[in-house]
Amino acid sequence: MLCRWLAYSGSPLLLADLLYGSEHSLIVQSLHARLGNEETNGDGFGVGWYGDEEEPAVFRGVEPAWNDRNLRDLSKHIKSGLVFAHVRASTHAPVQLANCHPFRHGRWLWMHNGLIHDFAHVKRDLALEVDPALYSEIEGSTDSELFFFLALTFGLEDDPPGAVARAVGLIETVGERHRVDVPIQMSVATTDGERIWAFRYASKGKPSSLFYSTDVTTLRRQHPDNPMLLAISDEARLVVSEPLGDLAGAWNEVPPSSWGVVQAGDDELHSFEPTRPTGTER
Amino acid sequence: MLCRWLAYSGSPLLLADLLYGSEHSLIVQSLHARLGNEETNGDGFGVGWYGDEEEPAVFRGVEPAWNDRNLRDLSKHIKSGLVFAHVRASTHAPVQLANCHPFRHGRWLWMHNGLIHDFAHVKRDLALEVDPALYSEIEGSTDSELFFFLALTFGLEDDPPGAVARAVGLIETVGERHRVDVPIQMSVATTDGERIWAFRYASKGKPSSLFYSTDVTTLRRQHPDNPMLLAISDEARLVVSEPLGDLAGAWNEVPPSSWGVVQAGDDELHSFEPTRPTGTER
Amino acid sequence: MLCRWLAYSGSPLLLADLLYGSEHSLIVQSLHARLGNEETNGDGFGVGWYGDEEEPAVFRGVEPAWNDRNLRDLSKHIKSGLVFAHVRASTHAPVQLANCHPFRHGRWLWMHNGLIHDFAHVKRDLALEVDPALYSEIEGSTDSELFFFLALTFGLEDDPPGAVARAVGLIETVGERHRVDVPIQMSVATTDGERIWAFRYASKGKPSSLFYSTDVTTLRRQHPDNPMLLAISDEARLVVSEPLGDLAGAWNEVPPSSWGVVQAGDDELHSFEPTRPTGTER
Amino acid sequence: MLCRWLAYSGSPLLLADLLYGSEHSLIVQSLHARLGNEETNGDGFGVGWYGDEEEPAVFRGVEPAWNDRNLRDLSKHIKSGLVFAHVRASTHAPVQLANCHPFRHGRWLWMHNGLIHDFAHVKRDLALEVDPALYSEIEGSTDSELFFFLALTFGLEDDPPGAVARAVGLIETVGERHRVDVPIQMSVATTDGERIWAFRYASKGKPSSLFYSTDVTTLRRQHPDNPMLLAISDEARLVVSEPLGDLAGAWNEVPPSSWGVVQAGDDELHSFEPTRPTGTER
Repeated sequence: MLCRWLAYSGSPLLLADLLYGSEHSLIVQSLHARLGNEETNGDGFGVGWYGDEEEPAVFRGVEPAWNDRNLRDLSKHIKSGLVFAHVRASTHAPVQLANCHPFRHGRWLWMHNGLIHDFAHVKRDLALEVDPALYSEIEGSTDSELFFFLALTFGLEDDPPGAVARAVGLIETVGERHRVDVPIQMSVATTDGERIWAFRYASKGKPSSLFYSTDVTTLRRQHPDNPMLLAISDEARLVVSEPLGDLAGAWNEVPPSSWGVVQAGDDELHSFEPTRPTGTER
Repeated sequence: MLCRWLAYSGSPLLLADLLYGSEHSLIVQSLHARLGNEETNGDGFGVGWYGDEEEPAVFRGVEPAWNDRNLRDLSKHIKSGLVFAHVRASTHAPVQLANCHPFRHGRWLWMHNGLIHDFAHVKRDLALEVDPALYSEIEGSTDSELFFFLALTFGLEDDPPGAVARAVGLIETVGERHRVDVPIQMSVATTDGERIWAFRYASKGKPSSLFYSTDVTTLRRQHPDNPMLLAISDEARLVVSEPLGDLAGAWNEVPPSSWGVVQAGDDELHSFEPTRPTGTER
Repeated sequence: MLCRWLAYSGSPLLLADLLYGSEHSLIVQSLHARLGNEETNGDGFGVGWYGDEEEPAVFRGVEPAWNDRNLRDLSKHIKSGLVFAHVRASTHAPVQLANCHPFRHGRWLWMHNGLIHDFAHVKRDLALEVDPALYSEIEGSTDSELFFFLALTFGLEDDPPGAVARAVGLIETVGERHRVDVPIQMSVATTDGERIWAFRYASKGKPSSLFYSTDVTTLRRQHPDNPMLLAISDEARLVVSEPLGDLAGAWNEVPPSSWGVVQAGDDELHSFEPTRPTGTER
Repeated sequence: MLCRWLAYSGSPLLLADLLYGSEHSLIVQSLHARLGNEETNGDGFGVGWYGDEEEPAVFRGVEPAWNDRNLRDLSKHIKSGLVFAHVRASTHAPVQLANCHPFRHGRWLWMHNGLIHDFAHVKRDLALEVDPALYSEIEGSTDSELFFFLALTFGLEDDPPGAVARAVGLIETVGERHRVDVPIQMSVATTDGERIWAFRYASKGKPSSLFYSTDVTTLRRQHPDNPMLLAISDEARLVVSEPLGDLAGAWNEVPPSSWGVVQAGDDELHSFEPTRPTGTER
């Protein structure tokens, strides 16, 4: 329960409605974790969205999201049909822009809740596996960014589920070599601006949580006064690391060891299994 | 020569083209003042622009503009037909968001290059003249923001030239009472999202500089490769506190003690004279 | 219950021992409010201390205190026998250095937990009462800083209890004029580097809390392993807005409407009553 | 000419006298580069100093040094007999604390002016040479920090000149492998809190500059009014990347391809030559 994120896909929506629209919105929740056993997510934030340009925009900050006046102001002026937002609770890595999600590479965004355990010990071995052509693009010092670069190395842009499976398999192999008990816990979202892939997995025990939203038509009937629900299209979809509290009945838990994709047409949900590197690969 | 600003009005333009488009752009100039006798404008910045919403957006930062990655990124994703941008060189007031231009009130934006001299001595007397209903909106500690609130007090929203004339008249009267030699030096721009008013004045001596751009059709002939010029409409207009260096022939100096307005139809240029408060007023 | 502060007087102590020494220290508590009904104090912080120089040092930051690497590092290198520390939970005023406590004027420090209610409405009337010679020193936009300048205006440097009583009396008079139900709630600490004065008061209802520490010899017997207790002298004293949790038996509540002074020789505790301005004064 | 630094060794001196003491001090120079062909050093800063503790203190910031109120305030309260100070002009790496000099490891500090050229291409090969036990301590993304970790890997703590020679030799070997014309340019200072080692070198052409101060007794005769000179002991020594302007006659240029050490007893100056890795090593 370290970070907290949401991914939105649907009709263009004002970022303010998405981020501040209710007292249980992501930003407000980042200040007052309501479930009692959660940390305050005050260690930086980031928002990424797609507009007219080829690459997505990313706006990140090192202060708590609830204090950022620029974010509050900008969010009233920017509409997008595909948004990633993330609030961070740092474990060890310093609070600096380069450590804030979502991370970006070309058209791709990536955000992660969870941990590569014992990162200090496995970091070097993992960094060596990053495609040398990508290596110098790593700007921060987090496990989440390195995980993204491993997924890119393994073909994220061509086959997201396959690339994430191979990245996780590598992280587990390296972790075991260093006698790490639970190499990875994760809920991850990634997008190319068209589709959103989300993953839930842990090497052992309960993974970080992951939820997707109920059909908007149903939700709107249950919450006729929610301004965000009125503003979005029928096929809109939210994927979140933790339920946003004021939308009872809205959240469907993704089972552990699963991945799904939100896309035009039917969404999909599949089981997820890491792909271990073969002996000859390394 | 403390701050530096530009105001743009014309066809919607990507902020990046306006702010970073050439090596003599506002942001680049803020780093390397080229004329030799100028300060580095590294003490915060701000950009305001109008979009679909009633109120303009404002994005400000306390670091040097040239370092702000969020500004660089956002500017590639935001288009606007009316933009204010300002880079600050602080004299005394601390470098904090609330001291960064442009200042905003409702639909109005305001930015200022210059000084209310001996501000520490005249500040209280000026603050007392601000409309009590507006007083608590003052968030920072600069002369420029207080000047804005005085102009609002004197009717900026109804009659900008008249309100600025009365604000300057008051500043001079109060300054003289405190034996300040040159109460004010200024180049100011303000807008309601439709028109831009600009003022150049000093109580004595040479005022801060002020320039407006030559007709775009002419400029485009002279600089056929400038990407910004290709992107903007014929009636586009820039008003700047100091010429942007790579557009030789582009800049027309506004004479001292003048004000002008950039608007649909013909622009106007008039002489400016402060309106002193009458005895009965205070 | 907006902010949280501590004041220390005693033998020179490493700031790190005072601020981070235990899991219930001020900084750690600022992240996880333990009593359940409290806010996260993530909106800036400040530490002031006295050394060899005439004026105290002040170090402030706009990020959450728990993230500030400079504070963490400096605190391991600075010892002082009189320390003020404050973590902020902002209500309305922006998160900027000038709004962070402790505030300083000459040799004096000031910090405040609580509120001047309806501050937007009473701010102007209160600001007009500040000594004109001090007015331009006001840098921020908080009620707490203005309260400090009112106390300075009324003679804080000569008679702290009298000056605070007059400042509170004025705040109540102005509040009532604006029909504010509870003009002020407060726990305040102020010091000249020799003595610490602390005040607890509310115009109506329960004031912000205030505690002072039990005699160190007694505490040390109860908590033989606490590193801070081992490090400090017998006459050391902590005054805090809220008890630091791991020192059971350590905290004595100051009754409402009281003020006390921590000093060489016996400490004192008196009842506090605001002094209303007389008709002729204003 | 990217960054600018100074190293001081001598009798304990108030940081303020060292950093702000004259109009040509490091901080003031960071704002107005006087020699005309220099960049503004506004991209973060850092100060490290030794006190009573085993490890040095480090205070760093991402804003321009001239704006940092905490630095200005702290510097009036901290005395030290060994100080490193650095102002940064970033080339590519982002402006974040983890990229600000001086870097620290245990008792050691390190700062660097210059460049590892084509760093994006050689970074991975260099990172792989860092001692795996140190690798995860790398927090930033600069060439300077990686250079420090290479020197640590090669035994900086036991034999600074030897370790730096091997680090530079490696950087040149890797650079040549990537067809980099001038693999490294540098003026470097490092210290263990007792002695200061400084290096000046470039693989080709003119290296970054390096100067050491003339004997204090001589200087004091020439500049009888300089407050810093009056405050420091006879054996005090400054090593700087660029002369501080107001001390004419004070600066002796270190020749290219040299290293020196400032220490109790006589200082030393030697020629510097990189030690290339032997074939069997890699």
